[in-house]
Amino acid sequence: MKLEGMTALSLGAKTVLNSATELEAALRFIGETRYHSLHPFHKLLHGGKLNKGQVQAWALNRYYYQSTIPIKDAVVISRFRDRNIRVEWRHRIEDHDGNIGSEGGIERWLKLTEGLGLDTAYVESTEGILPATRFAVEAYVHFVRDKSPLEAIASSLTELFAPNLHEERISGMLAHYDFVNPDIMSYFSRRLTQAPRDASFALDYVKAHAKTPEQREAVCNALIFKTNVLWVQLDALYHAYVEGHIPPGAFVPKAN
Amino acid sequence: MKLEGMTALSLGAKTVLNSATELEAALRFIGETRYHSLHPFHKLLHGGKLNKGQVQAWALNRYYYQSTIPIKDAVVISRFRDRNIRVEWRHRIEDHDGNIGSEGGIERWLKLTEGLGLDTAYVESTEGILPATRFAVEAYVHFVRDKSPLEAIASSLTELFAPNLHEERISGMLAHYDFVNPDIMSYFSRRLTQAPRDASFALDYVKAHAKTPEQREAVCNALIFKTNVLWVQLDALYHAYVEGHIPPGAFVPKAN
Repeated sequence: MKLEGMTALSLGAKTVLNSATELEAALRFIGETRYHSLHPFHKLLHGGKLNKGQVQAWALNRYYYQSTIPIKDAVVISRFRDRNIRVEWRHRIEDHDGNIGSEGGIERWLKLTEGLGLDTAYVESTEGILPATRFAVEAYVHFVRDKSPLEAIASSLTELFAPNLHEERISGMLAHYDFVNPDIMSYFSRRLTQAPRDASFALDYVKAHAKTPEQREAVCNALIFKTNVLWVQLDALYHAYVEGHIPPGAFVPKAN
Repeated sequence: MKLEGMTALSLGAKTVLNSATELEAALRFIGETRYHSLHPFHKLLHGGKLNKGQVQAWALNRYYYQSTIPIKDAVVISRFRDRNIRVEWRHRIEDHDGNIGSEGGIERWLKLTEGLGLDTAYVESTEGILPATRFAVEAYVHFVRDKSPLEAIASSLTELFAPNLHEERISGMLAHYDFVNPDIMSYFSRRLTQAPRDASFALDYVKAHAKTPEQREAVCNALIFKTNVLWVQLDALYHAYVEGHIPPGAFVPKAN
């Protein structure tokens, strides 16, 4: 399936999705053409083309995204009167927050930033992240609060495309960077099993609950929105740390 | 006054503001060091270094900011039980929306985009703007809704620094671009008289109502937030249209 007329914001007027099968094909096309696995910054990151300071900047900024996900998921849960969905969605918060005495995704991410030599208190303060990172991540929380519950679930569908990216990232970063080891990459290895379960639930949900062409369009636009949330973060990293335009007050890597 | 330890997000822990005079000095220092008049994209825009397509991209994206301001100001009004403040703030909506039969700032901005050769329906659709523009502008609306009324007013204080920028813009763009004329620049000439009135009210308000160092810090952080809202928009334009990394589905200028 090829989607004509997709804009930065939406599927565009030309596309009418008449079935769940067409919806899934459209969602997969959006992933193939808009997911941040295609972004030049990831090519540099996975190909060993970044220096340690640039990898630090990526991990520092991405921490804000990671640490906001359970907040986003708590908002998603709050949108549903249906207890079954709340129960199904709840494990996502646990995946990231862990439990007393057992680590979650956020702690695994801090292992990465600590392993890269960043001070954990500075990372957790988020004082040095790029303003564009903050705006993009907060847009995700506002989206799941302000849009329909169907769109809130649909915006998580980038997870359909995450495992391939994580596999490429683990192998690429371990192969190319002497400051990376399997232990600090444990966030990604763990997500290889978590993301597919989450993605298949969300995909089944939107296929079953988007019953009209308008609802299917809204589902696709929610995924386009989410691909923008991810893409904007990498554009900002590329502009600041590859092209060298670091905005006022943001993290400045020590000379490598 | 020099502020040490200002981050991308905040004034930092080192600064304690003990009076309204110190608050105003800090606000002016933030403007001198963080206002987007300092951004490289503005140097190019005002210096005649951009081609018509790049100026179109700026006007197209900035339209989303302009057209969101009355929505932002309606949210600000909604935060106040004090009728006097609502009455004072109301004219800002009128400045941008105009009245039946009289144009406001948004129509003046559409004169600019139309004068630059952009289709008004496309501009109004906002389908082609950079996702980073959308996230930054929407962050401003969320900020005035979610923060304190004092911070909501403080976030408007970038207007203290706008007149100098607008004068530089009017003279620079008229001098350098044959596709710019005084009529399509009427938005900026009109703001030369509107912005100072608005800014002086907001400055007097925060000086009178921020009574503790903590409140003065919150006022400064609101202004830092707002400078980020503006800076992020120009970073995104620079990355997409100067360095040539246009994100998927965003406006692509016709070859000049």
